[in-house]
Amino acid sequence: MGRTLIQGGIVVTAVDTYEADLAVVDGKIAAIFGPGAAPAITFDRTIDAKGKYVFPGGIDAHTHLDMPFGGTTSSDDFETGTLAAAYGGTTSIVDFAIQTKGDALRKGIDTWHAKAEGKAAIDYAFHMIMTDVNESTAAEMGTLVNEGVTSFKLFMAYPGVLYADDGMIFRAMQRAGEIGALICMHAENGIPIDILIAQAIAKGNTAPKYHALTRPQIAEAEGTHRAICLAEMAGSPVYIVHLSAARALEKVVEARDRGLPAYAETCPQYLFCSDDDLGREGEYGAFEGAKFVCTPPLRPKAMQEDLWRGLKTNDLQVVSTDHCPFCMKGQKELGRESFAKVPNGMPGIETRLYLLWDGGVRTGRISMNRFVEITSTAPAKIFGLYPHKGTIAVGADADLVVWDPNKKHVLSQKTLHMRVDYSPYEGQEVTGGASYVLSRGNVIIEDGKYVGKKGDGRFVKRSTFGL
Amino acid sequence: MGRTLIQGGIVVTAVDTYEADLAVVDGKIAAIFGPGAAPAITFDRTIDAKGKYVFPGGIDAHTHLDMPFGGTTSSDDFETGTLAAAYGGTTSIVDFAIQTKGDALRKGIDTWHAKAEGKAAIDYAFHMIMTDVNESTAAEMGTLVNEGVTSFKLFMAYPGVLYADDGMIFRAMQRAGEIGALICMHAENGIPIDILIAQAIAKGNTAPKYHALTRPQIAEAEGTHRAICLAEMAGSPVYIVHLSAARALEKVVEARDRGLPAYAETCPQYLFCSDDDLGREGEYGAFEGAKFVCTPPLRPKAMQEDLWRGLKTNDLQVVSTDHCPFCMKGQKELGRESFAKVPNGMPGIETRLYLLWDGGVRTGRISMNRFVEITSTAPAKIFGLYPHKGTIAVGADADLVVWDPNKKHVLSQKTLHMRVDYSPYEGQEVTGGASYVLSRGNVIIEDGKYVGKKGDGRFVKRSTFGL
Amino acid sequence: MGRTLIQGGIVVTAVDTYEADLAVVDGKIAAIFGPGAAPAITFDRTIDAKGKYVFPGGIDAHTHLDMPFGGTTSSDDFETGTLAAAYGGTTSIVDFAIQTKGDALRKGIDTWHAKAEGKAAIDYAFHMIMTDVNESTAAEMGTLVNEGVTSFKLFMAYPGVLYADDGMIFRAMQRAGEIGALICMHAENGIPIDILIAQAIAKGNTAPKYHALTRPQIAEAEGTHRAICLAEMAGSPVYIVHLSAARALEKVVEARDRGLPAYAETCPQYLFCSDDDLGREGEYGAFEGAKFVCTPPLRPKAMQEDLWRGLKTNDLQVVSTDHCPFCMKGQKELGRESFAKVPNGMPGIETRLYLLWDGGVRTGRISMNRFVEITSTAPAKIFGLYPHKGTIAVGADADLVVWDPNKKHVLSQKTLHMRVDYSPYEGQEVTGGASYVLSRGNVIIEDGKYVGKKGDGRFVKRSTFGL
Amino acid sequence: MGRTLIQGGIVVTAVDTYEADLAVVDGKIAAIFGPGAAPAITFDRTIDAKGKYVFPGGIDAHTHLDMPFGGTTSSDDFETGTLAAAYGGTTSIVDFAIQTKGDALRKGIDTWHAKAEGKAAIDYAFHMIMTDVNESTAAEMGTLVNEGVTSFKLFMAYPGVLYADDGMIFRAMQRAGEIGALICMHAENGIPIDILIAQAIAKGNTAPKYHALTRPQIAEAEGTHRAICLAEMAGSPVYIVHLSAARALEKVVEARDRGLPAYAETCPQYLFCSDDDLGREGEYGAFEGAKFVCTPPLRPKAMQEDLWRGLKTNDLQVVSTDHCPFCMKGQKELGRESFAKVPNGMPGIETRLYLLWDGGVRTGRISMNRFVEITSTAPAKIFGLYPHKGTIAVGADADLVVWDPNKKHVLSQKTLHMRVDYSPYEGQEVTGGASYVLSRGNVIIEDGKYVGKKGDGRFVKRSTFGL
Repeated sequence: MGRTLIQGGIVVTAVDTYEADLAVVDGKIAAIFGPGAAPAITFDRTIDAKGKYVFPGGIDAHTHLDMPFGGTTSSDDFETGTLAAAYGGTTSIVDFAIQTKGDALRKGIDTWHAKAEGKAAIDYAFHMIMTDVNESTAAEMGTLVNEGVTSFKLFMAYPGVLYADDGMIFRAMQRAGEIGALICMHAENGIPIDILIAQAIAKGNTAPKYHALTRPQIAEAEGTHRAICLAEMAGSPVYIVHLSAARALEKVVEARDRGLPAYAETCPQYLFCSDDDLGREGEYGAFEGAKFVCTPPLRPKAMQEDLWRGLKTNDLQVVSTDHCPFCMKGQKELGRESFAKVPNGMPGIETRLYLLWDGGVRTGRISMNRFVEITSTAPAKIFGLYPHKGTIAVGADADLVVWDPNKKHVLSQKTLHMRVDYSPYEGQEVTGGASYVLSRGNVIIEDGKYVGKKGDGRFVKRSTFGL
Repeated sequence: MGRTLIQGGIVVTAVDTYEADLAVVDGKIAAIFGPGAAPAITFDRTIDAKGKYVFPGGIDAHTHLDMPFGGTTSSDDFETGTLAAAYGGTTSIVDFAIQTKGDALRKGIDTWHAKAEGKAAIDYAFHMIMTDVNESTAAEMGTLVNEGVTSFKLFMAYPGVLYADDGMIFRAMQRAGEIGALICMHAENGIPIDILIAQAIAKGNTAPKYHALTRPQIAEAEGTHRAICLAEMAGSPVYIVHLSAARALEKVVEARDRGLPAYAETCPQYLFCSDDDLGREGEYGAFEGAKFVCTPPLRPKAMQEDLWRGLKTNDLQVVSTDHCPFCMKGQKELGRESFAKVPNGMPGIETRLYLLWDGGVRTGRISMNRFVEITSTAPAKIFGLYPHKGTIAVGADADLVVWDPNKKHVLSQKTLHMRVDYSPYEGQEVTGGASYVLSRGNVIIEDGKYVGKKGDGRFVKRSTFGL
Repeated sequence: MGRTLIQGGIVVTAVDTYEADLAVVDGKIAAIFGPGAAPAITFDRTIDAKGKYVFPGGIDAHTHLDMPFGGTTSSDDFETGTLAAAYGGTTSIVDFAIQTKGDALRKGIDTWHAKAEGKAAIDYAFHMIMTDVNESTAAEMGTLVNEGVTSFKLFMAYPGVLYADDGMIFRAMQRAGEIGALICMHAENGIPIDILIAQAIAKGNTAPKYHALTRPQIAEAEGTHRAICLAEMAGSPVYIVHLSAARALEKVVEARDRGLPAYAETCPQYLFCSDDDLGREGEYGAFEGAKFVCTPPLRPKAMQEDLWRGLKTNDLQVVSTDHCPFCMKGQKELGRESFAKVPNGMPGIETRLYLLWDGGVRTGRISMNRFVEITSTAPAKIFGLYPHKGTIAVGADADLVVWDPNKKHVLSQKTLHMRVDYSPYEGQEVTGGASYVLSRGNVIIEDGKYVGKKGDGRFVKRSTFGL
Repeated sequence: MGRTLIQGGIVVTAVDTYEADLAVVDGKIAAIFGPGAAPAITFDRTIDAKGKYVFPGGIDAHTHLDMPFGGTTSSDDFETGTLAAAYGGTTSIVDFAIQTKGDALRKGIDTWHAKAEGKAAIDYAFHMIMTDVNESTAAEMGTLVNEGVTSFKLFMAYPGVLYADDGMIFRAMQRAGEIGALICMHAENGIPIDILIAQAIAKGNTAPKYHALTRPQIAEAEGTHRAICLAEMAGSPVYIVHLSAARALEKVVEARDRGLPAYAETCPQYLFCSDDDLGREGEYGAFEGAKFVCTPPLRPKAMQEDLWRGLKTNDLQVVSTDHCPFCMKGQKELGRESFAKVPNGMPGIETRLYLLWDGGVRTGRISMNRFVEITSTAPAKIFGLYPHKGTIAVGADADLVVWDPNKKHVLSQKTLHMRVDYSPYEGQEVTGGASYVLSRGNVIIEDGKYVGKKGDGRFVKRSTFGL
């Protein structure tokens, strides 16, 4: 470890932008010096950040690594997924452990610990997906919170699989309110959706584009409103995951205008892709659109502007990835006969900062400070990783990105590091990328090379909800 | 039958107010004459309406006569209930037939036909409450529509009893959209409510006032929004029954501003009573409040103004009664130990026009035309009784009320005609009441006396939804 | 006059639709008979309305006949304008008398009486445009109300010409509140608009399309909100004339949701034309767009749907024409050099019912009853012409239109009767038109011919505001 | 100057909270050390901040020192006012220079420079109040921006005095948009207000409470909406000063939800006082309420919660004071005969942080970080003082407050330092106050004593608008 000086960069936090030298000692930020103020003491290493920005490392609060879903398993595990994250400037993830219906939460969390143990390139934490809410699992929620798993996710979608009814949701929210936990909600009403899917298939409408057509935005608006109402009744905060639709956003705006503790994230795919992509033809012919099958589905292009506005007005607080990659070969192909069998998910853990910098900061849609806030500070605060993660301040973990704003590169499956056989952004040139990435003071990415050690990423216990 | 002339009254419709003589021939309005224009032909009977108003007879679109509920049966049957209605100036009701879970709709509707047959003083129609929505009942919906039962009600409340899940609701709405039917919705999310009830009882909070405290308005706002969203997805209209709360109204306003076919009724109890009444002490001691236990519960007094505003802005289109009387003795008393066992419901079929005239028209909150619209024309149009009912126009049924605007009387269990042992409005003086009531041209109320014949009221086949 | 029977038509009012024979005696509706109920008495004339609809005659609450404006005078006077109105099924107009700055209201109203006297084919009334609000004109407002001029219009636009500042507006509203008058508002903030116009011209942007570009919808939304706020403070109702823009409509919706007495009309040009028309090329080359210069300007096509929704939700209550025709030759041409000199206005008094029937009723956007309401009943009620005008009921004036729903004709300057050298709808085929038009019982249009007598139209005293 | 170490405090910024030692060198923050990381170099002075918080110095963006108004002059000048500010933890103010109608802006700004020169205890900047907007003053706006006066204020209130019409406002906004300036708006429509005032006085309603009754919140809502609309049309940001009313806030919420660059401040008096105070009786008898006459007026108590919610949701970004003190004796007394002659204004420059800490942070309404944001960081960013002021980061001015969260003291005219003969909060105990205040590294307050030097406060040039 030792002592590292990151010299001459422009430090960017959620609120400040200033030139400084950062002294990193024993994995933490020990001192911040104005230009010329750093004393002539010996550092073990000096990193030249002149002309670069220094950000707190990215935090991706929504990933699905090594996750069984739809008859297969997401193609990145904790080794490949966290490595790709590191390349992209992300130094922490919060992945979703799953409780199997009928089993204890304990079993689910242990399974995920085992998946991650010794493999991760960066720090990681867990949310817990609950598929049963009963006396026993409610009790376990308290235990998990004590172990640093302080958020729980429920699904209004996927009846018969991950679906939780309003009673489960309400009880989980009441419990969360008591113990300082946060409920994350997949807020699409899956019940009418499943009826629409069955009706579409019965009519022979099986192409990928029907994935979007059978999941209308009203179903998401409804779920979002219901989640917020249940939370208000239960006296707990609520966090809407992967918000995709204008009318769902309206519900969040309305709640936040009322002063309710309602939070929401969107994902890069909703900001940069659209339902047009589901209708693409390409190397896989009419099945090309399967690359873009994720849930909620991609929406009409015009809604991208609504989401950008939401990010600007802070009605959306976070951009996470919902990284859940499946290869076209052998995985997405399961849905050749019907969109309903295409495993839902898109890769994204590596490209989040690239896309948001290039398409957000460089286009003037968001400021650099806001970029840092939505990719790092806000998720850290919402999910209890703060103040260790999510900011640049003395005492914080030295999870840092030295960002070269002028680095040009082409996004491609060939050069990206996620274990998936396609990229939704294949061939797209972006400007901006990490020169160095530090995880708790250790340089893990240097000049585009991973120089860390597998397993150096640690499980992070998160605090209870504190906003 | 023959020929009757109603002479010299001021005719009031939803839109017009004019002096006229009405010629009634064979149960229908045959001609409308301006003052002095009626020809000197012979009428069998002349009714002097000088100084009186002539309204289309009241239509009460929400009654529960002879209905098993909560371990007992609503205390008015089709004889006593329709008689009381007639006294109060109501000439048609739409009562709720119930499908017993597992049985055919046919069985339910037949049961209700049997309950009403030969007993009613005024015309009646049926909505059908569905507790199963499946292929078989969906098919039956079409049959019932052909038989003039063109609206179906589902419950988001009462899990395990009348509750319908979102799948049932959505399928019923899709079906309704196809066949021109209308879905009526009890739009309170009963799932969290039942949890709150159990928690209240566990804490020993069993008095009547906890009925309101365990059914927060958010649960109704949520249900209202969800019902509207499901209807929008299904492509059908929706009608929210007994809307009671400001925030539920907001959801209807929002939908109607968007141009959606969303309709809502409120009831006199929500306009004139409040949750204060649930805390009353009286002849039944602390249990007095049980008189006011209905669902949704009475709300804080301040919300009355919101509902009046909704009536004014046409965001609420109808005032029905949700007449569902239970005697204190032997019925409401079932809930002595716990509010949750108090049969839900209040009497109201007779007092609707009295209260709305006295507290609405005379106070200037609504005009006379609006009074006619919300008590007769709007329910007739929404529920397919129009143009036979709900207006005064040639060709329409001569269901008429000759209304004395100056008649003073005191509301009291002793003088009202509903078969229930209390009145929520005991001792309250009101001004305005019917001098004559005609049902299809027959005088059935005259000088405060019922002069009709039991069983003269007929079942009315309603048309499909046409707005 | 005598006795006329209109036989066998389908009578349509704002609320009812029924088959009836209408007996007209001495200019008024004397009796309404159901089919077969009309007695065998002698009528002087029988009009066969079989297969036709019978409407209350159209009321156009916004016309500018014989009005000096922009250095010229609107091309229809009370003779030609009311004749054209009659052809189109309109039997009453409310025209705008103007107070010249510094003169008494009396002088303005007398001038307009003189313009109309002895010329009109149909009944007419006056609004009074006030350009001064001071003690003297405030006093005159009371006098005018007594003379049946019960509405006053002020302009937030046209600084230096018709413009009234907020003090004038507020005082006029307070006064209106006292005396039961209604303030009509041209609710565009003309101050920034005039700056934008000067800036456009300075840049050489003088083509007709800049008329729209210099009058952004925000200026109208602002004025609309301000007018409503001033009225709320003054305790008076307010009526927004010629509402054209989505965001202005939002302000009306918001006010009406709050229960405020705010009313608004739109005009056919905003429902059927768009700012695309301002950019048209045609017989007048690039100046063709001048035909479509009116104020507020035509808006983007997408806003037409917002206005139709407003008509459906009753946030817009009236469709008037703002008929203010100027010939291209010699009048519109004044603005060859600059859009700012094009006299503002479009012809429309004759085509209102054609367009709304063909493009509103036949397309299913509005019902027949709503058609009658927005073209006749609502303006009658809002402007105090009711119950003499605006409905079909005994005692009302027999201002009637027998409407042939299947009559096809082509709109063209050649066949229309307005005194203007172009039609904005040239060549457009519409279905629906008047077979007969009666003004107070006199047939004035029969088989497409005017059979009335110049000057038979009378000045109508209007009642005070009564909604 | 030299080198100062502030040791062991908890540093609080708008986003972070951490323990650190702050090294101040030559008036700026030179380094920030984690606990124990500060090198053993010599500091000239060490300040013990153990158990204390360290905030960026307060910034009061709205003060009126030495301002002629209502026939008198605000009672604090730049000496007494800035001294009081320093005591209260405020290290920068932005005061309002005034252009006298007809004079150049230059003359106004020079006058204010002269008022402040050599007197101030803390740094100061100027907004410029414009009473003429014409070619010449528009040109001067550019000059002033170059001199660091980058915001301009206009008044929709006070017709005939400070009032600007919509043309002036719009032109100023267009100009501001071009040159990166910000328009501050007193957004009450003073025109109807002045009419209401005259009417109240005519009726003999002259007591202080009529100040509020003649300035209804609708006038403020209207002005707020209009200001935002004009800014949107002009393409410039807008900042609403001293927002006081729920419905005005609604307009800001609506604009911000749309993503518009609309900003607003409220003031402590609107958060802690209410129109009840205007009706107080006390040492001045029924005139006691004059102490609370400020504009906009104090509002009903219930609106305080709306404003707190606005602060929480960031719809209100700043709390400034609108410090404009007048002594009861000789000043407020000018209005003995009529509220309209009471000089408008309340003292507040010293008590802002006390009230917000005690009533905001300690009650849990806002977090410490939000406290810093609304009192320092946000005004710094909005008004171009950032990054020199408004944050704690290396390179920033060492304007710092060492805050003792447990210091109890009683607010009283006797112990406060503002030159005014009363305190609105007389006798109220608060907890929390400054132990040390540093202005550019100089300790100016120490142990409740001013230890600075008159005139050490400098004029600060502000940057153009950058959000």
